[in-house]
Amino acid sequence: MSRYWSEIIKNIEPYTPGEQPGDKEYIKLNTNENPYPPSPKVLEAIKRAADEKLRLYPDPNCEELRTTIARYYGLKTEQVFVGNGSDELLAFSFLAFFNPGKPILFPDITYSFYEVYSALFNIEYKLIPLDDEFSIPVDMFLADNGGIIIPNPNAPTAKYLPVESIQEILKCNTDRVVIIDEAYIDFGGDSAVGLIQEFPNLLILQTLSKSRSLAGLRVGLTLGQEDLIEGLNRVKNSFNSYTIDRIAIAGAVEAFNDYAYFQEVRAKVISTRERVAISLSEMGFKVLPSKANFIFVSHPTYHASILFEKLRERGILVRYFNKPRIDNFLRVSIGSDEEMNRFLDVMRELTAIK
Amino acid sequence: MSRYWSEIIKNIEPYTPGEQPGDKEYIKLNTNENPYPPSPKVLEAIKRAADEKLRLYPDPNCEELRTTIARYYGLKTEQVFVGNGSDELLAFSFLAFFNPGKPILFPDITYSFYEVYSALFNIEYKLIPLDDEFSIPVDMFLADNGGIIIPNPNAPTAKYLPVESIQEILKCNTDRVVIIDEAYIDFGGDSAVGLIQEFPNLLILQTLSKSRSLAGLRVGLTLGQEDLIEGLNRVKNSFNSYTIDRIAIAGAVEAFNDYAYFQEVRAKVISTRERVAISLSEMGFKVLPSKANFIFVSHPTYHASILFEKLRERGILVRYFNKPRIDNFLRVSIGSDEEMNRFLDVMRELTAIK
Repeated sequence: MSRYWSEIIKNIEPYTPGEQPGDKEYIKLNTNENPYPPSPKVLEAIKRAADEKLRLYPDPNCEELRTTIARYYGLKTEQVFVGNGSDELLAFSFLAFFNPGKPILFPDITYSFYEVYSALFNIEYKLIPLDDEFSIPVDMFLADNGGIIIPNPNAPTAKYLPVESIQEILKCNTDRVVIIDEAYIDFGGDSAVGLIQEFPNLLILQTLSKSRSLAGLRVGLTLGQEDLIEGLNRVKNSFNSYTIDRIAIAGAVEAFNDYAYFQEVRAKVISTRERVAISLSEMGFKVLPSKANFIFVSHPTYHASILFEKLRERGILVRYFNKPRIDNFLRVSIGSDEEMNRFLDVMRELTAIK
Repeated sequence: MSRYWSEIIKNIEPYTPGEQPGDKEYIKLNTNENPYPPSPKVLEAIKRAADEKLRLYPDPNCEELRTTIARYYGLKTEQVFVGNGSDELLAFSFLAFFNPGKPILFPDITYSFYEVYSALFNIEYKLIPLDDEFSIPVDMFLADNGGIIIPNPNAPTAKYLPVESIQEILKCNTDRVVIIDEAYIDFGGDSAVGLIQEFPNLLILQTLSKSRSLAGLRVGLTLGQEDLIEGLNRVKNSFNSYTIDRIAIAGAVEAFNDYAYFQEVRAKVISTRERVAISLSEMGFKVLPSKANFIFVSHPTYHASILFEKLRERGILVRYFNKPRIDNFLRVSIGSDEEMNRFLDVMRELTAIK
C-alpha cells in the first residue's frame, strides 16, 4: 500500500491471469490458448507489415480490419469496433454503457474480471446464481437492472446458452445494454450476431485469442448497432486513440481472410474435446457439456485441488479456482491430441483405484 | 447521443488525433512522427517474432522489455512499467494516482488529452497559464494540489523546462504524484530520470513513438520508484492483463538495444529542426525555442489558419489548434530534409511580399 495510490486502486483486487511459468517446459492447459499455430498467411502478413511504415501511427479507426470483419459477418463497418483483446473491450464497454447507482447483472460463476471492472469503474453489480447444473437461469435476467453481461459459452463452466434464450433476455431488457461475451463461441455454439439488426441493445464481444490462435497478438472485436459502436469509439478516443498496432491489424485481417484454416483448427479442437470428455467420463469424472475450447471437470473421489497439484508436479498446468461452488472443479484447456493423451494418461494414473 | 450511453460518455469531448487522410499523398508534418524508419534490427526482430508462439499470451509482466529499459537507464526492473503507447500510460496513471475532489494541475496550453482523461475519470483540474513567452511558471505549481502533470518539452509549444525546475516542483509536492511526460525528451532535453531515486513522487513517461520511429508499434514506458510502478500494475491488472503483444515486445527490446541507430536518427532530426527554425525566422516567423521533434511558429502578417489551409492545398499537413492564445500558431513536425525543403519553399511562397 502506497500513500500515492488513488482511493480506487487502494481498495481493488486485481485479476490474476493464469500463470506463465518459466521454470520448466509445461503442457499448458491453463489459459485456454489454442494448441495450433496461427494461419501461415497471418504470419506472412505480419512479416510484410514489418516495414518502415512502423514510424507512422496506425489507422486510429482500423477501417481495413473493421471492413474485413463486417464482410465476414454480413454487417456494416460502422457496426464493428476492434480493440486490444477482449479484456480492453470489456473495460471500454463498462465505461461506455454502465452507470453507478443501478446494479448490472452477471452470473455468480463466470469470468472473474467482470467484478474487477465493476470495482474499477464504481459500478454496482448483482450476481445471478447459476442453477445446480451450472446453467444460466434466464428468468433471473428479466428483472430490472442497469445492464447485463453474460459469456456464452460461460467460463469456466464451458456451458452454452441457446440463442433463443439470449433473445428472451434481450426482449425484456430493451432499455439497457446486454453484452454477450462470445470469446469461446467458435467452438460449437451459434453466435447471437444474427440478432443485431433486431436488437439495438445487443453488444457482442469476440476475440482472436482463442479460435484464431492469436492470444499473442491482442485483438478483439465487438459487434452491435451503430450507436453502441459509436459509444465505444467515444471511450477509446478519450483513452488511447491507437490501441491496435500496425502489425496486429495486418495479422488480424488475414486471420479473417483465411477461412479454411480457421475451420480446420476449430474442428480439430472440437474433435479432441469430445474424445477427452468421453475418456474422462469413463474415469468417473463429471464433465460439464462444453461448447468451448476447455472443459470443466470434477471427480467424486479425488479433490480438484489435489489433482491440480499432482498434475503440476507431472508437468501439466490446468486452472483451479478456489471459490464457492467450483472449488472441486478443474478447468482444462483442450491442447493437441498428443498433449491430451499425456493428460489422460496422468489422470488415469491419479484416479486409478489403488 | 444514444439512450444506451453512460452518463460519462454522454458528456465527454473525446480527443481528436491529427488527421491521417487517405485521399492523396501528403507531406505529413501533423502528428510528430519520425521521418526516418525504425532500426533495421527492430524490423528483423519483429519478423523473427512472427512465429507459432503467437498462439500463446504474451508475458503479462513484459520482463524482458522492462529489464532492457531498466539497464538502459540504470534502474531496477521493478522501476519500469510498459504499456500500449504513452496515452494508455497516461490513462492508467490518472486512475492510479489522482482522486476526485482535489484538483490536479497542468498547463493551460498543453497536450489536450489531459483534459479528456480528467473528464473520463471525474478528476477535477486547474489550468496553470503559461507565461507570455509560453514558459511553464514554476511558482504556480507549488500551491496545494491533488497531483501535477507537465510535459517536458511541452506540447505544442516545444519549450523545455530545465531539470532544476522540475526538482523544485518535486520538492514542494512530496505528498502527491508529479508526472513528467517526456514523450519528446530525446530531441535535446535532459530527462529527469536521475531524480527518481531521490523523489518517490516522480513518475516519468516516455514513448517509442517519436525518437525511436515506432508510432505504429504502440509502446510506451514509465519510470519511477517501485510503489508507483506497483500502482500502475494494479490498474493494468484490473483493466487488461496483456496490453503489449508479443511482436511489439520483441521490437521494443531491439529499439533499446540499437543505441547507435537511435543516436543517428535523433541527431538528424535535431539538425534539421535547427536549420528549419533559422530559415523560418528569416522569413519573419516567430519560432519558439524547441527541444522537440516539432516547432511552434507564428507569423506577424499571415494568419496561421490561412497558412494551414494553403499548406494543405499544396499537399503539406501541419497541425492548427483553434484555441485561445495559440490560434495564430502552427505546430510543424520535423520531417526529412527533403520534406522540410519543400515545406520551406511553400512557406517562402506564401509569405512573400506581393
